[in-house]
Amino acid sequence: MPENTVPDLEALKKEAALRAVALVHSGMRVGLGTGSTAKYAIEAIGERVLSGDLKGVVGVATSDASEALARQVGIPVEPLDPRPLDLAIDGADEIDPRLNLIKGLGGALLREKLTEVQARQLVIIADQTKLVTRLGEKAPLPVEIARFGFLSTIERLRALGLVGRLRQPGAQPYVTDNGNYIFDAGLPASFDAAAFERQIKGTLGVVETGFFLGMADVAFVAAPEGVRELRP
Amino acid sequence: MPENTVPDLEALKKEAALRAVALVHSGMRVGLGTGSTAKYAIEAIGERVLSGDLKGVVGVATSDASEALARQVGIPVEPLDPRPLDLAIDGADEIDPRLNLIKGLGGALLREKLTEVQARQLVIIADQTKLVTRLGEKAPLPVEIARFGFLSTIERLRALGLVGRLRQPGAQPYVTDNGNYIFDAGLPASFDAAAFERQIKGTLGVVETGFFLGMADVAFVAAPEGVRELRP
Repeated sequence: MPENTVPDLEALKKEAALRAVALVHSGMRVGLGTGSTAKYAIEAIGERVLSGDLKGVVGVATSDASEALARQVGIPVEPLDPRPLDLAIDGADEIDPRLNLIKGLGGALLREKLTEVQARQLVIIADQTKLVTRLGEKAPLPVEIARFGFLSTIERLRALGLVGRLRQPGAQPYVTDNGNYIFDAGLPASFDAAAFERQIKGTLGVVETGFFLGMADVAFVAAPEGVRELRP
Repeated sequence: MPENTVPDLEALKKEAALRAVALVHSGMRVGLGTGSTAKYAIEAIGERVLSGDLKGVVGVATSDASEALARQVGIPVEPLDPRPLDLAIDGADEIDPRLNLIKGLGGALLREKLTEVQARQLVIIADQTKLVTRLGEKAPLPVEIARFGFLSTIERLRALGLVGRLRQPGAQPYVTDNGNYIFDAGLPASFDAAAFERQIKGTLGVVETGFFLGMADVAFVAAPEGVRELRP
């Protein structure tokens, strides 16, 4: 159990997840995020489903891993369709004061963005180490790129001022659920996030960026003194 | 043999392909297009390689099908890397008077664009039925979209004024070499192609569009009276 190895951080993340999951009501269609924090939310929803506290809840998963976990803990899962989701719960890699986010270190940025853009309410859970004054302060921006011609795409991204590296945890590059690669890009010291997002997405070979701008409605951020509720 | 079934059109396409292939010289790295017209160019390059007329030519294929054909006719094939290509030869679905193109009816638009943007010279071959006064006059604009959440992506495209349908030749949707779907979009009667391209590419879920703007250097267009050479 993670609690045994890193008790503080994991306990804090779980506490934030519980605050988010308290917003789930019976009958809701809920977007299920991906990563170590979202995992706690999925498990907590599963507990409320199994106890009978939540009825008729349907999950829409943002990754194969989250879908498998959701089914395992008893949440019925449906594919994304054009109907709005009542709520989506997910972690984030960076959260700025206006709740603009960088996401995608977990590798599911495209599916997360496609799912969460349809949520009436996007709820972010994180520990306080994810709070930044400007995006890119601590984390790279993950950029999902087509595998074909990826070296040329990376050169085009470098020409935009993005210095980084292809995500490659082992002998082979990391491949997303959509069959693409991820370029983890360091961000310049100063930029207009909305304009930069358009420029990066507009680059040939780029499938999506890890900027989630103007999407989050609330963030539950765990700190040693308790869970803070932040709004844009 | 196609010559037996549709003698006129196929003979014209072949003639245009031969004019394009005359631009290939020994030692060149050549982008190989995809589709029924590009096929003639690949075969003609292969003949020149096998006869010893062309030495040291390397092909960079824009689809699995073109790669297989190239190897079959004796052209060594390498994957795309960031080095420029000397030349690329491909067909097009529509060609406007400034040689702006719509491509992608063959399903390889992303790889074609990624490859051909690196060509010092992009040579288009077509028959005269592909000439239009404005893009979208006859052909739909193919838009490559992620499979995940594709119905929502199509709704976003419809909101931009693109009326069309998911490409689905049989029981299942068509899947590109990159694992994506294609939405064949009818274009409005009037639009600014460059601005529209940015808007469509910027749409969440869109991987690439079939607009090839400002990329073609020359087009060989076959007509009953002979092959015309067009420049922007």
